Amino acid sequence: MLPYTTLLQIDKASPQPVYQQIAGQIVQHIRSGVLKPGALLPGTRELASQLSLHRKTIVAAYNELLSQGWLEVTPKKGFNITRNLPELKARSLRPDQSAAYGNRMAVPFYGQKAAMTTKANEPPIRLVVDDGHPDPRLTPLPLLMREYASRIKHAQRPTIIPGSLTAGTQRLRTTLAGYLQRSRGIQAGAEHLIVTHGAQMSIYLAAKTLLRPGDYAIIGDPIYPVATQVLENTGARIIRIAVDDHGMDITAIEKACKRYPVKLLYLIPHHHHPTTVTLSPERRLRLLDLCTTYNFAILEDDYDYDYHYNILPHLPLASYRHQGRVIYIGSFSKSLASSVRLGFMVGPADFITQAAQYRRLVDLRNDNLLEDALATLITNGDIHRYLKKANKTYSERLDNLDLLLRTYLADKIIYRRPTGGMAAWVRFKPGYDLSQIAQRAAKKGLYISNGKDYNNAGIPFNGLRIGFASLLPEEMNAAIGILSQSI
Amino acid sequence: MLPYTTLLQIDKASPQPVYQQIAGQIVQHIRSGVLKPGALLPGTRELASQLSLHRKTIVAAYNELLSQGWLEVTPKKGFNITRNLPELKARSLRPDQSAAYGNRMAVPFYGQKAAMTTKANEPPIRLVVDDGHPDPRLTPLPLLMREYASRIKHAQRPTIIPGSLTAGTQRLRTTLAGYLQRSRGIQAGAEHLIVTHGAQMSIYLAAKTLLRPGDYAIIGDPIYPVATQVLENTGARIIRIAVDDHGMDITAIEKACKRYPVKLLYLIPHHHHPTTVTLSPERRLRLLDLCTTYNFAILEDDYDYDYHYNILPHLPLASYRHQGRVIYIGSFSKSLASSVRLGFMVGPADFITQAAQYRRLVDLRNDNLLEDALATLITNGDIHRYLKKANKTYSERLDNLDLLLRTYLADKIIYRRPTGGMAAWVRFKPGYDLSQIAQRAAKKGLYISNGKDYNNAGIPFNGLRIGFASLLPEEMNAAIGILSQSI
Repeated sequence: MLPYTTLLQIDKASPQPVYQQIAGQIVQHIRSGVLKPGALLPGTRELASQLSLHRKTIVAAYNELLSQGWLEVTPKKGFNITRNLPELKARSLRPDQSAAYGNRMAVPFYGQKAAMTTKANEPPIRLVVDDGHPDPRLTPLPLLMREYASRIKHAQRPTIIPGSLTAGTQRLRTTLAGYLQRSRGIQAGAEHLIVTHGAQMSIYLAAKTLLRPGDYAIIGDPIYPVATQVLENTGARIIRIAVDDHGMDITAIEKACKRYPVKLLYLIPHHHHPTTVTLSPERRLRLLDLCTTYNFAILEDDYDYDYHYNILPHLPLASYRHQGRVIYIGSFSKSLASSVRLGFMVGPADFITQAAQYRRLVDLRNDNLLEDALATLITNGDIHRYLKKANKTYSERLDNLDLLLRTYLADKIIYRRPTGGMAAWVRFKPGYDLSQIAQRAAKKGLYISNGKDYNNAGIPFNGLRIGFASLLPEEMNAAIGILSQSI
Repeated sequence: MLPYTTLLQIDKASPQPVYQQIAGQIVQHIRSGVLKPGALLPGTRELASQLSLHRKTIVAAYNELLSQGWLEVTPKKGFNITRNLPELKARSLRPDQSAAYGNRMAVPFYGQKAAMTTKANEPPIRLVVDDGHPDPRLTPLPLLMREYASRIKHAQRPTIIPGSLTAGTQRLRTTLAGYLQRSRGIQAGAEHLIVTHGAQMSIYLAAKTLLRPGDYAIIGDPIYPVATQVLENTGARIIRIAVDDHGMDITAIEKACKRYPVKLLYLIPHHHHPTTVTLSPERRLRLLDLCTTYNFAILEDDYDYDYHYNILPHLPLASYRHQGRVIYIGSFSKSLASSVRLGFMVGPADFITQAAQYRRLVDLRNDNLLEDALATLITNGDIHRYLKKANKTYSERLDNLDLLLRTYLADKIIYRRPTGGMAAWVRFKPGYDLSQIAQRAAKKGLYISNGKDYNNAGIPFNGLRIGFASLLPEEMNAAIGILSQSI
């Protein structure tokens, strides 16, 4: 007879019922090999007496194990551990370390086996310069959440058909269609819109829908690195086109189109990431002509449309004569706050349907309450009012950054004041190595990017995007102070 | 001279400044071909006089167009439309319909060209039977939102390093690790956890990390159809293994492993979708042995762990001796409400790092405020208390459904009462065609699935998952009433 009084430790103070404690511990002992398949358990009366418990408690525990399949009843003998459980090797009673997750997976998987970053020795970071994010302290998040909360209160009737929310709620899609018409002249209906979890998901869905291994895709150089990674992930062949002061080089694009059957061109028309240049009207029109002539899709990632200082935004290519070749992407993660995960994509209805089918594989749906709360803020004009205020504030913050850069760093950097967006592109002159500067700044509590993500094929841009929107003037003053001390 | 008084329509009541109205309309006329490249514009004084506006307004409009690149200055002559704009064909002044999005995309894309569903003639749906979702009316969403709102109020200092939130906030990952240890014996740390946008995203990331075209993957039959679609999407070869009353057929799995180098097995251990059977302890142990012998990964999708009625849940395979071969998936979209888009995945650290790298391509990050709000609810015990209450309520709702089925449909269906979860699996006997029943029910305002998603290779299960958790007793009574009238 096993020492059941030792094996089964009852904690009467625990919120877990005693019968469940017993059942759970018996399973543990089966799993650890202490109780072997076929072994007879003590009778309920006997075990109850050993543990000084009511017999009903033991009966409840055994019944639980019976219904779970761990025990069987042998007529006239009593309860035994299920006989056809696989033979378990005797294992130590100590916690089984092989049940704990470790660093390495035995089953091979794909992608480089990434080194785990250990951050233990890093100095504490007190201030972060991002690469262009809104300031969550300014955004109407409280309004959005109030609207959200009011939707919870009105108990919802169960009328949502499963699968119907993949592309977003009808209400937000319809509201967005009107908003895009009014704010930027895009003529689209709800059926031309999918609501996503942010611009990144839109890029991913478009790439997966349009590209297969061996297809050709054009992208700027330098460029937002995660966009490149998405295109590469599809197996497409990537053609990199230089970005100059007026945007992507259209003559080079035309040459590429003559040579290769290009399927897709990824474009950031306003404030190209990272260099902040805006595509000129001449190039916009030529690009539209090219996409018609060579029948490729333009993925217009216009996440920065909402931010322009002392200048009007260009209307998107999607508002021009495009015959459905321009897929338009925007994001409220940029317009409101990075924490708000809502983006959208506009395209022909059949393309949007296909993208939604792919989206279902990746991510069933968004939070429909959040979607409808956003729709209300758009309808009420809250988004419009907020953006007006944000443009004013960000314009002042850009003024401040511009002054700081000219005062403290003028001789060490190449930089042109952007006309909009949320970041400035600052290239350090040869001799000032950004990755060393970043290391020194980190020691002083300031995080800045080391800029390596923008380097391609060994060309070091030595460039830093300084996000000016998310920092208060005093925070930016401190950041540039540390930065200039770190050079 | 063009009739500028006709071309430029000023609306002084508009919130848009007049100079912007003029600039915008001039761009429209360039785009529509009315104003051609190189054309000279009237002088500012002259245009001001024609339009009865202050000259400064016209100067502001021209400056805007200059800085946007639409105009150039020709010395001694004045402003002209930028000469090197591409030649634009004269177009009608009517709204250009080719700028509107339509049904078809000219650029070829992948996937079937889906027929657009037109819902115009569908009868209004007043009641929906889902396939197993929680009731949002019961969940602590108001608590979650209160916690969320309080996080907005405390203005955040800009200390979030870009890219650091891909796998979830450190706070939620650490909290979840403790929660999984306490609630189901999984021994993992924050580095073994990625927070995703729901179980679907976890499945997608795991599949993309573990499978490449030609790899072998095992899945149950019948099964949650979107899981199959994800595995197929990786290009893997799918081996379907029958699911009987005790779960997947382990002997058949072993045979498959002997024949093919299996990489991954997708498993729903509790309340298999759709059939609601739970994998027996014997099979659990045999499966763990198999995955060690044949070195494949088990993707344990245990989204239903939290719901058990009059029976304890089995501890997950991930809590057994698995040597990092079991990837564990759970979701608060199931535990709390479908609208809450937070799921998680547990695995070896190197696998989780790789999955996070892939996740960045698909979806940069979650809402970190929501993540931390959830962490607080877990820490405060709110989730635990809610689940206790929900289990009681759902158990009663299952009792009610069980009674309804036995009273009204007993002779027409094959059904076994589930021991947990949020849905019952009801197969209609031959002669009662589910897709016809669904059509008739829709005419009476009730949505039920037609069950076709579960059919594989022509085997019609004729089966319906009846989600009992999300409907109040009176709603379920009405639903089964309509259903029985529709047979």
